[in-house]
Amino acid sequence: MNETEKIKHFRQFTDFNDSELEIIMPYFEFKKFKKKSILLDIGKVSNEVFYIIKGCIRLYCEKDGEELSTYFFTENMFAGSYDSFLSRKTSKVAIETLEECEVLVLTHEAQEKLYDIFPKMNEFIRKAIEQRFVLLHDLFISYLLNSPEERYLTLLNDRPDLLQRIPQHQIASFIGVTPVSLSRIRNRIIKK
Amino acid sequence: MNETEKIKHFRQFTDFNDSELEIIMPYFEFKKFKKKSILLDIGKVSNEVFYIIKGCIRLYCEKDGEELSTYFFTENMFAGSYDSFLSRKTSKVAIETLEECEVLVLTHEAQEKLYDIFPKMNEFIRKAIEQRFVLLHDLFISYLLNSPEERYLTLLNDRPDLLQRIPQHQIASFIGVTPVSLSRIRNRIIKK
Repeated sequence: MNETEKIKHFRQFTDFNDSELEIIMPYFEFKKFKKKSILLDIGKVSNEVFYIIKGCIRLYCEKDGEELSTYFFTENMFAGSYDSFLSRKTSKVAIETLEECEVLVLTHEAQEKLYDIFPKMNEFIRKAIEQRFVLLHDLFISYLLNSPEERYLTLLNDRPDLLQRIPQHQIASFIGVTPVSLSRIRNRIIKK
Repeated sequence: MNETEKIKHFRQFTDFNDSELEIIMPYFEFKKFKKKSILLDIGKVSNEVFYIIKGCIRLYCEKDGEELSTYFFTENMFAGSYDSFLSRKTSKVAIETLEECEVLVLTHEAQEKLYDIFPKMNEFIRKAIEQRFVLLHDLFISYLLNSPEERYLTLLNDRPDLLQRIPQHQIASFIGVTPVSLSRIRNRIIKK
């Protein structure tokens, strides 16, 4: 993928003008990953974030040998274990592609260089992390206040595309129930 | 509080030099609040964040008429309902002082002006929101993976000062148990 094509995709994410995008684009590397590629293991330090051009990526942690999906990212989102990427601590979550993916990869090293040579990168990353913070906060509050059925309805309302793209058992772990309970929830909703 | 005194406090938070701090300081207003002041109600849009010079501030949400504490902020931290402050949506959490507080207030309007006149503010806020993101992510993962007893031990290890400053029933709601269960947890830990 050439720089012009990369820029075309990034225009959907930021209001940077073309000459600004031309400065930052060489620091983003285009990569393709097959479905079910592990981009980061639990316990490793995250060195990369992934701007998704095409595909779906999930984060998950593990409890008692079971995978708990904690987030799903799709086109025009930055996917990553930001906690580890920012703090340089080991990651509590793994990153996995759920579909064949085309991404633009920003390494931690490239990001730090960009802050030096192009200070406006701070605005770009500030907005990216603010967006991510709001999503994480919504998720955290929904775990505290909402029932699994309410969380499923929120997902159905806010991200109906995800329900088509993601295996049912991963949706179940995301809303905090077993696959059998998720079937019951779906049946109750259909009957309403 | 004059500008020089404000700058002295902010030096602990940022690596901005004094001339940079002199630019931004007039946008932060010094305020004092009595103990148990409500700085934001649930359902309102947050227009202010609070850099704490002295005191302790908590966030809480409400479920079935009960208050659930979601975070505690102390000296040299920015306290606020960032979710609402950033997204301009109504806040799901309230903000309350737990002690008499001295704070530097940044309004949303002042922040937007600062981005215009002093682009380096993006770096300042990026670092603040990154710090907050890491804390929120730790908290979210601990709700998914850890028992209330493990969450209490983490608090005891990471923020022992909080256990002295905050009423027991608020600590209990923060780790997700009743005050009676918290007493049992504390007794078990003392016996170990």
